[in-house]
Amino acid sequence: MADTKTFGVMLFEGFEVLDVFGPLEAFGILASEGKCRVVTVAERAGAVTSAQGPKVIADFGFTESGFNDCPPIDILLVPGGIGTRKEVTNHTALEWLIAHAQKAEIVASVCTGAALLAKAGLLDGLRATSNKFAFKWVTEQGPKVKWVHEARWVDDGKFSTSSGVSAGIDMALAIIARITDLATAERIAVRMEYEWHRDAGWDPFSKLHPLK
Amino acid sequence: MADTKTFGVMLFEGFEVLDVFGPLEAFGILASEGKCRVVTVAERAGAVTSAQGPKVIADFGFTESGFNDCPPIDILLVPGGIGTRKEVTNHTALEWLIAHAQKAEIVASVCTGAALLAKAGLLDGLRATSNKFAFKWVTEQGPKVKWVHEARWVDDGKFSTSSGVSAGIDMALAIIARITDLATAERIAVRMEYEWHRDAGWDPFSKLHPLK
Repeated sequence: MADTKTFGVMLFEGFEVLDVFGPLEAFGILASEGKCRVVTVAERAGAVTSAQGPKVIADFGFTESGFNDCPPIDILLVPGGIGTRKEVTNHTALEWLIAHAQKAEIVASVCTGAALLAKAGLLDGLRATSNKFAFKWVTEQGPKVKWVHEARWVDDGKFSTSSGVSAGIDMALAIIARITDLATAERIAVRMEYEWHRDAGWDPFSKLHPLK
Repeated sequence: MADTKTFGVMLFEGFEVLDVFGPLEAFGILASEGKCRVVTVAERAGAVTSAQGPKVIADFGFTESGFNDCPPIDILLVPGGIGTRKEVTNHTALEWLIAHAQKAEIVASVCTGAALLAKAGLLDGLRATSNKFAFKWVTEQGPKVKWVHEARWVDDGKFSTSSGVSAGIDMALAIIARITDLATAERIAVRMEYEWHRDAGWDPFSKLHPLK
C-alpha cells in the first residue's frame, strides 16, 4: 500500500472545528493530488456536533462493526475541543485510539486532543504538548508524560502533539514534509496562503498563558 | 435586536473547508461568550460535500421555504473552493445572496467566494480581492469590480473580501474587532493561538502567483 496513505480524523461531540479543518485542509490539498485519502471516523457514523455548533458527518463509526468498519489509518489526527472533557472517560473511544495508534505510521493531536492520547497511556514516557489555555487539565490526564509547555508542536517517535487550534496547521505541514518532501509542504502552504511557522519551538502563546 | 448577531455561512458542494472553518472558529468563540450565533445555510438543508471530501450539515436550506427558512443574517460569509466554478451559474444561489446581502450588516468572502459576490453584481464599482491562485478567473466574473491584486483582505462599505483560504481568519478577526472591539478580537486570536496578520495590505502570496 502506502503510495496513497490514509489521513483519518477522529470526531466526537464537542470537537473544535479548526483543530480538524486546519490540518484537513492541508491533507485535502495533498489528496487532490492523489497522494492521500481523507476519512473521518467517530463512535457512530453520521452527524457529529462540533463545539462551535455546526455538524460534520463521520464517514465511519467504530462501534457499529467492531473496529472493522474503518479502513487502516496511516496518519491519525485527534482534535481537541470542549468535548475532550467527556471523551477522556469514554473507554470505547480510548480503546479504539489504542488499537489504531498501534497500527498508524503517525499519530497526531491538536490542542486538548493530547489529553485523549495521554489518558489512553499512549504518550507515557514521551515528550508532548497541548494548548496553553487548558494545559493544566491536559497534563493531569497523563502524569507519566514529559509535558513541554513552550512548543508549537512536539515530535516524539510516531507521535506529534501540537499546541492550540491553529498550531495544528503548522504541525500538519511538518508531517506532510516528513511523509513527502519539504517542497510539497511549502507548495501546500502557499496554496493555503498560509505563513507556515515551521519552527516547532516557536510559541509566543506559552508566555500569555503561564502555567498555574 | 443586534445584541446577539447572527454569523451565517453559505455552503455549497465543493466549498473549501478552511475558508469556512477558519472564520467560523473565531465567530464560534465569540458565540461561546453569548455575543453571536452561528448558522450554516445551503440550497438545501442537510449534508453538503466539501472540496476536501468531508460533509458538513447545512442548518437551513434556501429553496425549501422560499427565503423564509433561514433567519436574518447579520454577518454573511461566502467561502471559496472548486465548487464556485459551478456556483457562479446557480441563479437560485445568486438571488439568495443578493437578497441576504442587502439585509446583512457585513458581507464577507474568502478566496474564490468573491467570484459569487462579483457574479451577483454585489461588488460592482467596489474594491475587492480574492485568492491569488485563481485570481484571473475570479476577476472575469466581475468586470466592473475594482480588483486589488495585492491585499490580505479588502474592505469597501459593507463588503470584506479576503485572499485565499487562511486569509479568511485574518479578515474574520478584523470583522470581530469592528463589531465588538479590538481587545475582543485579540483575545480570540490568542485563544486560537493564532498569529493574527492585522495589516490588510500584507500579502506575500501575491508575488508568488503573479497576474497572468
